[in-house]
Amino acid sequence: MKQHTRTIPPADPEAYYTYLAERINRDLEEAVSEDFPESLYHPMNYVLAAQGKRLRPVLLIMSCESVGGTCESAYNAALAIEILHNFTLVHDDIMDNDDLRRGRETVHKRWNNNVAILAGDGLIALAYRFLLKTRSRDMRRIIRIFSEAIIKICEGQSIDKDMETASTVGLEDYLDMIQRKTSILLSISAEIGGIIGNGTPEAIETLSSFGLELGTAFQIQDDLLDIISEEAVIGKDLGSDLCNGKKTYPIILFIERASAKDKERIVNMFSTVRSNKKAVADFRTMLNSYNIISDVIQEVNRRIYKANEYLIKQKNDISVEYLLHLSEMVRTRTH
Amino acid sequence: MKQHTRTIPPADPEAYYTYLAERINRDLEEAVSEDFPESLYHPMNYVLAAQGKRLRPVLLIMSCESVGGTCESAYNAALAIEILHNFTLVHDDIMDNDDLRRGRETVHKRWNNNVAILAGDGLIALAYRFLLKTRSRDMRRIIRIFSEAIIKICEGQSIDKDMETASTVGLEDYLDMIQRKTSILLSISAEIGGIIGNGTPEAIETLSSFGLELGTAFQIQDDLLDIISEEAVIGKDLGSDLCNGKKTYPIILFIERASAKDKERIVNMFSTVRSNKKAVADFRTMLNSYNIISDVIQEVNRRIYKANEYLIKQKNDISVEYLLHLSEMVRTRTH
Repeated sequence: MKQHTRTIPPADPEAYYTYLAERINRDLEEAVSEDFPESLYHPMNYVLAAQGKRLRPVLLIMSCESVGGTCESAYNAALAIEILHNFTLVHDDIMDNDDLRRGRETVHKRWNNNVAILAGDGLIALAYRFLLKTRSRDMRRIIRIFSEAIIKICEGQSIDKDMETASTVGLEDYLDMIQRKTSILLSISAEIGGIIGNGTPEAIETLSSFGLELGTAFQIQDDLLDIISEEAVIGKDLGSDLCNGKKTYPIILFIERASAKDKERIVNMFSTVRSNKKAVADFRTMLNSYNIISDVIQEVNRRIYKANEYLIKQKNDISVEYLLHLSEMVRTRTH
Repeated sequence: MKQHTRTIPPADPEAYYTYLAERINRDLEEAVSEDFPESLYHPMNYVLAAQGKRLRPVLLIMSCESVGGTCESAYNAALAIEILHNFTLVHDDIMDNDDLRRGRETVHKRWNNNVAILAGDGLIALAYRFLLKTRSRDMRRIIRIFSEAIIKICEGQSIDKDMETASTVGLEDYLDMIQRKTSILLSISAEIGGIIGNGTPEAIETLSSFGLELGTAFQIQDDLLDIISEEAVIGKDLGSDLCNGKKTYPIILFIERASAKDKERIVNMFSTVRSNKKAVADFRTMLNSYNIISDVIQEVNRRIYKANEYLIKQKNDISVEYLLHLSEMVRTRTH
């Protein structure tokens, strides 16, 4: 066995986040213990070795700690959540025909669709393997929450694909979709952390609500970053949502507010080109002219504030400091 | 709630099998309780409403009963196993580009690949939902066995896809592949049934071995039926394995035994046509000339005999009658 030097976790919230994310990154690189067949395990490893933000597992661990549990007790469930998240990325990338993810080729692009389907399926089972290593009196409940979240995520992705071909999408329907597709995983991360940490029923419910709101803010932020950040930073196709006909939060606002002429101009611009830097820049200018970028930023702030409020109200049962810092990191992220 | 007339289960093994399969068919039609989004739930329902043999869930129930457990205690786990099996069918059909399944269009053919990927993913989670309804002291163990089986199945399918493009495949490697891809699910059906029924450790291990051997016999039988049965009976493409370049048990034997000239003839015949009845008939004649059909039938019989031997040795802990009847049904099936 390898010798691990035991590091003392830093006390500063930001340094602690970094410490956890790095530990998770290292352990995910070794999460797959098998190597045959290579056609299954190489792609699974490839996905897990991509260094990520690891927001969900950190949220799970900090939620557990916030109610008095330990990082160690939550750690395997945290890995499980991140592995499950990676399954969704692999299958979504097939469906969205995205070529890049975290600055590297997607699995279906590097190998093929069949390999990506199987790697995703394998990741689901691997996620359960790690989840099952958790010690908790409430295992059945944890596994049920985990399984129900997978169904919700499939619902969300199905609705998302339906919306691509829908002529119009309302903001409310869009928010319903991202709650299923994205927010749910942050919500159950916080919830499962609370359960493993033996939080009070009220604390667990609060953590779940906090995660849901944080997840929604996170996704709206993501929608915005798809338009206003650079490919080099985000590691995805520039404006890939736009080019895929995705009706994201800022795009729905644009469709609601823009003049018929401006809408037509945008539709023409993106129906023919993919990853055209000039087109994306022009679209940004137009979004600004309708105040959309500032309004979306405000919406993210509003939701982060609401998420924080849940915690603060429950601060007798929950140590809120690290979680509030986490939501602040989400709010101010640029990639 | 609907009124159900309570039927007394028939005492005769064959009638009891039919009774269980029909009950499972009915309940799978109603297994999906949600209906929105239709793009997810309609295909999931479509898959589960296809009437099938339901071998795996019946095996699970009969295994539970064989060690003194009740059908009711095993029933949800039985549905879970069948739902999991259906997930594999949906994703495998995408990868194999098969158009027909149980006499109906496959999901990816009727809808598209994206819908089929999501329907399969949703079926995995639905399987866990049903599994979690099981009442057993050994839930963690059952869920672990279930999850590990999914990984094995992914391995099997990966190896199977690799074999399509391999220049030669040995019988031993082929048997290793089908154990992962097919036998494992029958093995865990019997094992989980034994665990739910509170069988002795020896009885549970015996049931697992019985299922594994039965599953291998079942798959070899399936390989043969792909060649010697009619499309109308099996509800799949006639000779679809052949046309997909699958190296199945009889085909591997053929490659081992046939003259260079005969091999070349067959390769030419199937590289250009798909579902050509005359080509399949000619291939059958050629297999007969190398005694392959009779040898494969003998191999199936040998494995069924071995499976039965496991049970008979353990007959103090296991009521073997129904399970022996089940293996006899597998041995003599024609579709």
